[in-house]
Amino acid sequence: MRIVVLAGGIGGARYLRGLKQAAPEAEITVIGNNGDDIGLFGLRVCPDLDTVMYTLGGGINEDQGWGRRDETFTIKEELAAYGAGPSWFGLGDRDFATHIVRTQMLDAGYPLSAVTEALCARWKPGVRLIPSTDDRLETHVIISDADGRRAIHFQEWWVKMHASVPAEAITPVGADDAKPAPGVLEAIEAADVVLLPPSNPVVSIGTILAVPGIRAAAASKTVVGVSPIIGGAPVRGMADACLTAIGVETSAQAVAAHYGPGLLDGWLVDTVDEGVQVEGITVRARPLYMTDLDATAAIARAALDLAAELA
Amino acid sequence: MRIVVLAGGIGGARYLRGLKQAAPEAEITVIGNNGDDIGLFGLRVCPDLDTVMYTLGGGINEDQGWGRRDETFTIKEELAAYGAGPSWFGLGDRDFATHIVRTQMLDAGYPLSAVTEALCARWKPGVRLIPSTDDRLETHVIISDADGRRAIHFQEWWVKMHASVPAEAITPVGADDAKPAPGVLEAIEAADVVLLPPSNPVVSIGTILAVPGIRAAAASKTVVGVSPIIGGAPVRGMADACLTAIGVETSAQAVAAHYGPGLLDGWLVDTVDEGVQVEGITVRARPLYMTDLDATAAIARAALDLAAELA
Repeated sequence: MRIVVLAGGIGGARYLRGLKQAAPEAEITVIGNNGDDIGLFGLRVCPDLDTVMYTLGGGINEDQGWGRRDETFTIKEELAAYGAGPSWFGLGDRDFATHIVRTQMLDAGYPLSAVTEALCARWKPGVRLIPSTDDRLETHVIISDADGRRAIHFQEWWVKMHASVPAEAITPVGADDAKPAPGVLEAIEAADVVLLPPSNPVVSIGTILAVPGIRAAAASKTVVGVSPIIGGAPVRGMADACLTAIGVETSAQAVAAHYGPGLLDGWLVDTVDEGVQVEGITVRARPLYMTDLDATAAIARAALDLAAELA
Repeated sequence: MRIVVLAGGIGGARYLRGLKQAAPEAEITVIGNNGDDIGLFGLRVCPDLDTVMYTLGGGINEDQGWGRRDETFTIKEELAAYGAGPSWFGLGDRDFATHIVRTQMLDAGYPLSAVTEALCARWKPGVRLIPSTDDRLETHVIISDADGRRAIHFQEWWVKMHASVPAEAITPVGADDAKPAPGVLEAIEAADVVLLPPSNPVVSIGTILAVPGIRAAAASKTVVGVSPIIGGAPVRGMADACLTAIGVETSAQAVAAHYGPGLLDGWLVDTVDEGVQVEGITVRARPLYMTDLDATAAIARAALDLAAELA
């Protein structure tokens, strides 16, 4: 079986771990989100790609859900001593090495997809991980605060401000001109099913779908998603702040309607949301908390079962 | 008093520490050697500038003479796990931060001299440290071994091969087109004395003098040097391998003759070399081992005394 997953960071990576257990024989291609990518200290940082790579490769900080296990922060301390900012993005020493290798390869002319493949040669995540695009794509957020109305990088809003200022708009800068990375459309075309993990529907999956061609390719397939909203609140993170910015209610129903029946065929909601209906989409209720690997694998299995039923 | 010092790495930095004690009121400008500069992992590394900066700023690994104290090597370990080379150049985590800040500033368009000044704002070395040039200048070495006759970077010959293969030639690549960094010629012109520490006469001081304009500017001043050769052997390092490559005998006499009376006015040799004579250069013998700070300060004081006498 060939499975394509459009994945963001922490939630996507954990879901993938469950999926690998649920479908050990499947050939899984992960289309990773680029919208969180940022240039820091002259280095190219791709948080979502790295979270997937580290999580599936056994290098993740499990408690945190992102970054490396056994991490140290010597460089961060030294950069602060030089007064080199920003200090709000917590890059550890081990993580820095990844960004150094990536940046060196990008500077040498390799596209991000080839760089990601090279990094994965070390981590062996057990899936094929491809960025949504090799082109520059960064999510920016329009806010208004004491410094006026302005666009800031998504990471500044999310990590530095903890989304404390409302987003007036969220824009995937560069998406219009971005081309899907080599292999992305081919993988979707060859897929038996496309899965949407409980990743952020706006700044993770939404940004992947904003790359021209990806939504249309996925729409021609059986697509089953897992709601990231349970009982009107995000399972983790601040997806509500993103949904509000694009005028979508924070509910399992509204997120499915936002993806739309043109894309989504099946939708898993939590048992607390039992009864949710969305026209044109088959909705099933089951426990959706990814409390451990077995629970997560059961969710992934339910998504695959629903896909088989709808195919 | 205004003093200009043409300095390499470890020996130059230690001499400068003595000079600062010997002449606490002096305004000291250090022209640093660029020949050891190398691009590693996409970062610009300037070992001699950093050794001077760390040594005078209190951040040096005293035992080693280069690199940072309390250093860790997490990034090196991670880069090796990615198979990213080279592994023979020992960059520590603290040191990496310096190269990250430097590279980011260079990429942003700042010249190396401005970057060096910015880095020194943290270290406060108590001297003005200027690279010999803002242009790209790297020492390369011609060798012949099992892989044939070829040019390699000086660091590869020095650090990786420990100069075990004879150098057929040593070339400061880029020197012909290099311009002295802003402030270099002005500092020499304003100087009461120019001092040559016991740095490598070929790949440290020789490379600085290879930048067009620096030798002529220095030659118009009173120049006093300290022999890096004692009793026919380098005090430290492998200067003999470099001297042999350019056809100069490893002796206090031959090094002074190589600098020449056109540049050098006074020359300090160790007591074991008492009796050395070089036409046109005033030679004095005294203990030259920089065993501790007081001994080093006494050597620097002797150089200043000789300069005063010759002025």
